Amino acid sequence: MTSMIDQEKASIQVLSEGGVAQPKGFKAGGLHCGIKYKRPDLGWIYSEVPAAAAAVYTTNQFQAAPLIVSQESIAVEQKLQLVLCNSGIANACTGEEGLENAYASRKMVAQHLEIPEHYAAVVSTGVIGDQLPMEKISQGIEQIALTDHEESQFEKAILTTDTVTKHVAVQIEIDGKTVTIGGAAKGSGMVHPNMATMLGFITTDANVVQEDLLQALKEVTNKTFNMITIDGDTSTNDMVLVMANGMAENKPLSKSHSDWPLFVKGLAYVSQTLSKMIARDGEGATKLVEVKVTGAKNDQAAQAISKAIVGSSLVKTAIYGADPNWGRIVCAVGYSGQPIDTEKIKVALGSITIVENGLPVPFSEEEATDYLKQEEIEIVVDLNEGDGKAIAWGCDLSYDYVKINASYRT
Amino acid sequence: MTSMIDQEKASIQVLSEGGVAQPKGFKAGGLHCGIKYKRPDLGWIYSEVPAAAAAVYTTNQFQAAPLIVSQESIAVEQKLQLVLCNSGIANACTGEEGLENAYASRKMVAQHLEIPEHYAAVVSTGVIGDQLPMEKISQGIEQIALTDHEESQFEKAILTTDTVTKHVAVQIEIDGKTVTIGGAAKGSGMVHPNMATMLGFITTDANVVQEDLLQALKEVTNKTFNMITIDGDTSTNDMVLVMANGMAENKPLSKSHSDWPLFVKGLAYVSQTLSKMIARDGEGATKLVEVKVTGAKNDQAAQAISKAIVGSSLVKTAIYGADPNWGRIVCAVGYSGQPIDTEKIKVALGSITIVENGLPVPFSEEEATDYLKQEEIEIVVDLNEGDGKAIAWGCDLSYDYVKINASYRT
Repeated sequence: MTSMIDQEKASIQVLSEGGVAQPKGFKAGGLHCGIKYKRPDLGWIYSEVPAAAAAVYTTNQFQAAPLIVSQESIAVEQKLQLVLCNSGIANACTGEEGLENAYASRKMVAQHLEIPEHYAAVVSTGVIGDQLPMEKISQGIEQIALTDHEESQFEKAILTTDTVTKHVAVQIEIDGKTVTIGGAAKGSGMVHPNMATMLGFITTDANVVQEDLLQALKEVTNKTFNMITIDGDTSTNDMVLVMANGMAENKPLSKSHSDWPLFVKGLAYVSQTLSKMIARDGEGATKLVEVKVTGAKNDQAAQAISKAIVGSSLVKTAIYGADPNWGRIVCAVGYSGQPIDTEKIKVALGSITIVENGLPVPFSEEEATDYLKQEEIEIVVDLNEGDGKAIAWGCDLSYDYVKINASYRT
Repeated sequence: MTSMIDQEKASIQVLSEGGVAQPKGFKAGGLHCGIKYKRPDLGWIYSEVPAAAAAVYTTNQFQAAPLIVSQESIAVEQKLQLVLCNSGIANACTGEEGLENAYASRKMVAQHLEIPEHYAAVVSTGVIGDQLPMEKISQGIEQIALTDHEESQFEKAILTTDTVTKHVAVQIEIDGKTVTIGGAAKGSGMVHPNMATMLGFITTDANVVQEDLLQALKEVTNKTFNMITIDGDTSTNDMVLVMANGMAENKPLSKSHSDWPLFVKGLAYVSQTLSKMIARDGEGATKLVEVKVTGAKNDQAAQAISKAIVGSSLVKTAIYGADPNWGRIVCAVGYSGQPIDTEKIKVALGSITIVENGLPVPFSEEEATDYLKQEEIEIVVDLNEGDGKAIAWGCDLSYDYVKINASYRT
């Protein structure tokens, strides 16, 4: 994944600033409506024109009300012009009342901004089971003014236990037109493959055929957002949403367009960058952990193995303690559910080989410990059995993870 | 499970003391041979006569050397007379040398006690990847004296990060004879379904047909040892081993014996008691968590759901923080991979109902918090869809789990 992107990097210009409001015709903002005590808790993204829209959703069976409403919106024309996102309350496990509140929020924001209801999506993140305070939501929506936009406020308004905002923007050239892709995300706890409490918003001014946009989003999400694990829990509210409003005026991008791969790479770069930001900002995390698996029988096997390693509590605590405990890495591979040849596996921490042919090799404990004290750790596993490869991202498991989650609601 | 056992409790007498050396003809002991700094690290169980033996092993693909050797021993006659277990070093991922060391240990102990080699099993637990210090093992074996036995020393010698020894013994009456079943176990970290760093040793003086003994062990293990989760990691070394030496002189127990169900219940009681002791002593644990799922489509679904709940880091930290965060419980059910009707689920903490028909119900936050401050927590989930049921055991996730595992080797 990384290397594929590296090859194309020449054609992808990473902007030093900007996020979802960077592409032409997009605005974003956020405000405090009173769900949280003080911080912004109601954010919005607006496109001047209806944008082709696609989204992927949590696999958790308890799908939150806003996800149901947003899916309905997209289903009508596969277009969106607005996304409204509140933080603090997830509006999940809230029954009929929760669903009605999600519909009511959508209706209010659509009326306020004078767009058709089905051009609006609603998103929520926060505590499960509480009902949205509709009075506050309503007052908040009334305060939204398209002239008063600041994307950093949007980025702040979608956070829960995150410690930093997350955004990225890139530019590519398509049909001689500059196409911008921007993104913002929130993550932190309860992040696990298959869309966990994680929200990703991607905007682009590219002109893209919706059907292909959805497929590209699915492919890219499987290799990026779905490869992050913070604590193995999969939330009720996750989604990644992409809007493409066509204002870059390129010819419609579809799989048959010669620049399609470049567009997908741009989308992948944005998704991967946001994914790594989420992993690095995992609850209580002190390090970003990247697990690269190569030589697997196939990509699916590599994905399962890399996720087993990055998700292992024992590996995560060892990394927190800067302990080059290769045994726990090998052990995680062994219980990943993927059959491997245990005598062929090679494991390295960065460039320090610690296991070869399934057995530990002599290495400098001091050098390995020093390596693990860095803020970005790479675990490289080569199974020497095939061409399958994958990368997963996660973080270490620290005292603070326990602290944050033992007292989240109080 | 619990209720089934309750019904039979009248016929099962739980002894106030005793473990693996309680059944007739069994002795056990332990000593310090120098793998650990000070504590006992070499334990043994001996039967005066060869005993029908059966075992279940880790599903981790990196199976430790001693497991391979022990399987070979049992394969010869399905009998054992001796089990040797060291702690401190797991002899896992140790290649040819590790395998040779396991064979050599078996040979030494068999010669020392003058029994055929294939009547001896060897077991190891501890750090992965280090070779056994054979000089020390050898000297330790030489010190084993059957006259110098004390089962509490065996129980201590098998521990790693455990904080307490674990043993239980029960008696039942079969064919007018008193049959005793005793057990000892170690657990603590890296404990997860499918045999994790967990060792269980069960002895009985019952006369049992080996084939049926193995099947009973498998059935019972699936509902007890395999239903414990500490951290989701599955170790390379786990096994549960049962030896039945027949010295109670009952008629051979097999499935066709009218008291077979009673014997299986006795075995289940011992296994369940040890399992709960392991869960309660999970690394850093302050509470035992029991998750009961009823009303599932079938038992397999109930097992998967109960394990998802008890294994959720977010549920575990919430319990540590005495936070009645029902949302995390419901969320774990939702990602368990088992299709359920989300509008039928009921959740209770002990007798305090917190969710009904998939929605939160009013409950006293104070009462629930008080309940969660206890040392034994019961989470009861009724899916109202069928007759499937299961119980899983685990513990909370505390600061100490991180502390222990961030510095295990150092």
